[in-house]
Amino acid sequence: MAKIQSKKNGTKKEVIIEKASRLFREKGFGAASMRDLAEHVGVEAASLYNHIQSKSEILQTICFRVANKFMTNLETVETSPQSTLKKMEDVIRLHIRMMLDQYEFVYIADHEWRHLPEPYLSNFLSQRRSYRKRLGNIIEDGITRGEMKDIDPYVAVLTILSAISGIDSWQRSRKSTSAEDLESNMVKYLIEGLKK
Amino acid sequence: MAKIQSKKNGTKKEVIIEKASRLFREKGFGAASMRDLAEHVGVEAASLYNHIQSKSEILQTICFRVANKFMTNLETVETSPQSTLKKMEDVIRLHIRMMLDQYEFVYIADHEWRHLPEPYLSNFLSQRRSYRKRLGNIIEDGITRGEMKDIDPYVAVLTILSAISGIDSWQRSRKSTSAEDLESNMVKYLIEGLKK
Repeated sequence: MAKIQSKKNGTKKEVIIEKASRLFREKGFGAASMRDLAEHVGVEAASLYNHIQSKSEILQTICFRVANKFMTNLETVETSPQSTLKKMEDVIRLHIRMMLDQYEFVYIADHEWRHLPEPYLSNFLSQRRSYRKRLGNIIEDGITRGEMKDIDPYVAVLTILSAISGIDSWQRSRKSTSAEDLESNMVKYLIEGLKK
Repeated sequence: MAKIQSKKNGTKKEVIIEKASRLFREKGFGAASMRDLAEHVGVEAASLYNHIQSKSEILQTICFRVANKFMTNLETVETSPQSTLKKMEDVIRLHIRMMLDQYEFVYIADHEWRHLPEPYLSNFLSQRRSYRKRLGNIIEDGITRGEMKDIDPYVAVLTILSAISGIDSWQRSRKSTSAEDLESNMVKYLIEGLKK
C-alpha cells in the first residue's frame, strides 16, 4: 500500500487529521473506525499508529484547535478599544469564515464533542459556556453604552451562533450564492439586528 | 404487560407517535428499534403492530404533520393583506412556537427526514425547497416595497431558520430564560435585522 501522502508544509499527522475530520463528519465519530480512516488515508491501519494513538486523540486535537481559535480571537476583541458593535462584527466574521474555510473542523467541534473523553469533555464544555457568557457580556456592555438595542444577551448569542451554524446547509447545497455574499449578507443581518 | 395508556382525547396511535418522537430524538431513528419503542410505551412489541405498521410510518406521520403546519400557515400569510414585515413575523413566531411546544416533532422533521422512504423523501425535500423559496419571495417583495433592507433573500431565510433551530440548545439547557423572553427577543432580533 501507498505511503501517507503529506502536503507541502503539512506533516503526516496533519494529513491524517484532515482526512479524519471529513470521515467523522460523513460517518459520525462513533461509527467511523480506524480501519475506515486507514482506507481514507490510503495506508494500512497499523501504520496510522505511527502517527496517532487513537481516534480520540484526533477528536481532541480538532475540538481544542477550534476552541483555541475562537478563544484567542475573543481575548483580542475584548481588550481592543473598538465599539461593541465592531467587536461583535469581528466575532461574527470569524465564526462565518471558520464555517467557510475550516468547515469540517468546526462541524466536528460543534457536533461530535460529546465523544470527547474526560477530562477533555468537561474542559471543552466549560470553555464553551465561558465563551458564550463572554459574548453575552459584550452585548450587555453594548446595551449599557447605548450602542445596541435592549435585547436579552443570552438570546442574542444563541441567535448569532445558531444562524452561523446554519452555513452547514449552504456547504451541503449547490451554492448558487457565493461565500462572499453569504458572509456580507449574514454579517449585515446579524449586526443590524443588534444596532440600536 | 400494561395496555397502551391513551390520554384523554388522544388515540393510542397518537400516544405511540408521541413516545416515538422522543425516542427517535434521543437515540436517532436508525438506532431506535420497535422493541425500544414498545418498552417506552410499556407494551409488548407485537401489540404495537395493532396500531402502526412500521417505524417508517411514524416518521412519515411526524415529518408530514410538521410540513403541513408550516405550509398551511405560509398559504394564509401569503394571501393576507399585511406588510411583508408582519408576514415574516408571523412565520418566525410559528417556527419559534413549534420549537417550544412541539419540540420533539420539529426536531425529528429537521434531523431525521433523511430516513424517509421514497416517494416520501423526494416529496418532503421538494416541499422544503419550495417553502424556503416562498419565504425568500416574501423578503424579495419586502425589499421591492421598501419595507425591508436590501439583503440576499436566500441568506436571510437561512439565517432565520437556522437561528430558530438553535432553540434546540435552549431546550436541552437549564432554561434560566423563559419561553416568553426567548420568543419575544428572538422575534425582535430577527425582525429588526430585516427592517429598512
